[in-house]
Amino acid sequence: MDVVDIGLTVKKNEDFSEWYQQIVLKSELTDYSEAKGFVVLRPYGFSIWDKIKQFFDKRIKALGHSDAYFPTLIPENMLKKEAEHFSGFTPEVFWITHAGNRKLDEKLAVRPTSETIAYSSYSKWIHSWRDLPLLLNLWNSVLRAEIKSTKPFIRTSEFLWQEGHTVHETKEEADLEVETIFEIYRVLIEKYLAIPTLTGKKTEKEKFVGALYTLTLESLMPDGKALQMGTSHNLGQNFSKSFNIKFLDKNENEKFAWQTSWGISWRLIGALIMVHGDDKGLILPPKIAPIQVVLIPIYYKDKDKINIDKKISEVSNSLSKIQISNYVDNRDDHTPGWKFNHWELKGIPLRIEIGPKDLSNSELTIVRRDNYKKTRIKEHEYKNIKLILRDIQSNLYNRARDNLKNNITDVTDYKKFVKIIEDKKGFIRTCWCYNEKCEQKIKEETGSDIRLIPMKTEKIFSNCIYCNKPAKAVVYFSKAY
Amino acid sequence: MDVVDIGLTVKKNEDFSEWYQQIVLKSELTDYSEAKGFVVLRPYGFSIWDKIKQFFDKRIKALGHSDAYFPTLIPENMLKKEAEHFSGFTPEVFWITHAGNRKLDEKLAVRPTSETIAYSSYSKWIHSWRDLPLLLNLWNSVLRAEIKSTKPFIRTSEFLWQEGHTVHETKEEADLEVETIFEIYRVLIEKYLAIPTLTGKKTEKEKFVGALYTLTLESLMPDGKALQMGTSHNLGQNFSKSFNIKFLDKNENEKFAWQTSWGISWRLIGALIMVHGDDKGLILPPKIAPIQVVLIPIYYKDKDKINIDKKISEVSNSLSKIQISNYVDNRDDHTPGWKFNHWELKGIPLRIEIGPKDLSNSELTIVRRDNYKKTRIKEHEYKNIKLILRDIQSNLYNRARDNLKNNITDVTDYKKFVKIIEDKKGFIRTCWCYNEKCEQKIKEETGSDIRLIPMKTEKIFSNCIYCNKPAKAVVYFSKAY
Repeated sequence: MDVVDIGLTVKKNEDFSEWYQQIVLKSELTDYSEAKGFVVLRPYGFSIWDKIKQFFDKRIKALGHSDAYFPTLIPENMLKKEAEHFSGFTPEVFWITHAGNRKLDEKLAVRPTSETIAYSSYSKWIHSWRDLPLLLNLWNSVLRAEIKSTKPFIRTSEFLWQEGHTVHETKEEADLEVETIFEIYRVLIEKYLAIPTLTGKKTEKEKFVGALYTLTLESLMPDGKALQMGTSHNLGQNFSKSFNIKFLDKNENEKFAWQTSWGISWRLIGALIMVHGDDKGLILPPKIAPIQVVLIPIYYKDKDKINIDKKISEVSNSLSKIQISNYVDNRDDHTPGWKFNHWELKGIPLRIEIGPKDLSNSELTIVRRDNYKKTRIKEHEYKNIKLILRDIQSNLYNRARDNLKNNITDVTDYKKFVKIIEDKKGFIRTCWCYNEKCEQKIKEETGSDIRLIPMKTEKIFSNCIYCNKPAKAVVYFSKAY
Repeated sequence: MDVVDIGLTVKKNEDFSEWYQQIVLKSELTDYSEAKGFVVLRPYGFSIWDKIKQFFDKRIKALGHSDAYFPTLIPENMLKKEAEHFSGFTPEVFWITHAGNRKLDEKLAVRPTSETIAYSSYSKWIHSWRDLPLLLNLWNSVLRAEIKSTKPFIRTSEFLWQEGHTVHETKEEADLEVETIFEIYRVLIEKYLAIPTLTGKKTEKEKFVGALYTLTLESLMPDGKALQMGTSHNLGQNFSKSFNIKFLDKNENEKFAWQTSWGISWRLIGALIMVHGDDKGLILPPKIAPIQVVLIPIYYKDKDKINIDKKISEVSNSLSKIQISNYVDNRDDHTPGWKFNHWELKGIPLRIEIGPKDLSNSELTIVRRDNYKKTRIKEHEYKNIKLILRDIQSNLYNRARDNLKNNITDVTDYKKFVKIIEDKKGFIRTCWCYNEKCEQKIKEETGSDIRLIPMKTEKIFSNCIYCNKPAKAVVYFSKAY
């Protein structure tokens, strides 16, 4: 197979959308399926998702959360219990009308999210303060019919995610849960995925329907659009009142419970691709890469083969011992050049080449995926490889952070606002009067919305960008996925 | 809460079905959901399923298998590609006709199993011998409409399972895969779940539709019915011909690939409950128990509390250090008696009590879940606890094995055959002529079928049980779930 066959045929900054499609397919993260709007998560894509899962799962388990599994199908009448919440999903729900040839007495919905099915169980399980807190997390898939064109990890009719659903005695405990999970999300996204975020609250208009408030993490994609990376909601007592989730407190008073829900999905993989990838393919931050180092032997003569294979195997073992995950690509039926391209496409952070010259000099040739820098290090200096991986991790983060910083513009003039949105120049930082009419008008006129009201209050620097009345908060606008 | 409230109100040998229902609900393994035929897997049930997953997943990963995720929905026309295979599922398929208010152009099936959706992808992915073997495993749920009454873990309209789907160059490689997985299943079921099995091949009539042959593991439940615990199929080239899964071999010849599929489901939890449980509740074999030891402090006076809590905490840490999973139940709002019942219901293999007398004698009181034997051991003799857990594991297996042995009857007379099936007395070992008509007649007349033709050929001891013509094999009959 020729080198050209496996590489990307478009550049990231020339046709971003086609570039993205090629990466997800050619690096074998995912594939389209024969069901329109649905994709297959292939083993390589799954292994990245699994790293994300492991990171998050370990941390929430340590905090006392448990797994559960709720049914995929929900009877129609149940969905009516929280009609306000559910109406947002109505156009996207897949409806089952038949089992075999038999028409069902009642239609069944394929879950677009599990609030209704979970909370009807919660009302049966919770009676006393002794039953609280209830801390459940579900790793599952949800289905929401997408009419727009399919974009793997970003817009598909089924996606993998986790949805956490917790129940508490007081608002304060629910607040703490919302913030604790939010912080785990932030560490995952910033420290592991190396993607900087803006953090804050959603406006009343943009919050999760039925929630008291929604916290959100927003990141900037290279096409100037925001991507919502994760959300954590304090649901207040809204759902507990609809679903009758009550408990007797320590003083034997009956109370409605306080709830939270929170989620991240495989769209984080989409963000990884978009933020870090380059014209050669994916670039994975070392902390989330299923394989951190690929080892490639380079033989010119058969007599080198035995010694080089032996050395490669030694290096691989030594890396494994210091917890650096690695893979030896010693296939005979591909050239080193083909392998370089293959593993660059797959985004492996570091490549080690060992040829006859490396062998005789007791050296390793190493090539970084983030900047293609090629250096030689002495054998046994494995700790250096750890340092280099750490440097790749921070370099990827810093590049993305600089890009984010350069694409936040302070705006006080609405014409300039409109122009920046048209030019797809990222986030606009501006001031707002808190009136939903202004928010709505801006959305209608520009297609952008308030992504968040920042977590740490920022100093107001003008009147409302739209109505010019006194502003109440600094907010961040952008178009979004 | 009174002790009586949490215990079982029926005996296992008096009302087996009600006993089972009470265990699954009261020990909080599962719960019914508002969608008829569907159940919720609660955290305790999930933690047992997770132990099963971890055991199996670790072993297949070591053999090079990977995870993938295929869509939940399958377009109708795809199902027609393997019509023979699919017809078995037709009456059970949930059909989606609408998304929101929009009628779909083509109906979508909720997957009853993933052969069709996976193999249409395989035909795109496999071109060369270099792409083989392809070793994928899916942990997912499948949906099959159940009309009969719901029995958690055994008969529900959705269940959790794993389905492995592999592709190979030759029949021999596929045979080896089928046998390798089968052996992992056997070790899981016999050594970890402590449930003895009969192993063998299914008849042509009973094999997986579309398979060349099916290997099966069958266990005996206390009501005299067999439960199929897991199956491993060599699919031959049947599916590769339907789905056009071809590859160029090393000599550049185009060939159809050889495939296998194999699965176990959460029904293994159902088997655990039925085989080992007693009138007090669940009994979990130590190797599969999420918690192996529960530690319960017993105070009579407040002054004891500090010292006993300290001791309990020491013991807990020491057990953790030698990989014995344990839980300290030091809740103040329940009596020791309540706790004993609670953890017996949940099937924890071993209980350690520490009261003032234990403390002053430097002893621990230990109570086995399998036989209620109460003994005292010296503190620090933690290795004894390992030995006791091992003994519980083998005792549970031996009990079940004796029960299996006592419920296999050699039969040469059809009248006796009919009587044994009517009396629900387990497996019948008999001889068969290999004629499907005899097999069919026996099924119609007795409701029992050939569960397997044993793996190791057994000596024929009579003519065919039905037609009295010369027999070709010893087979095992039984009614089954």
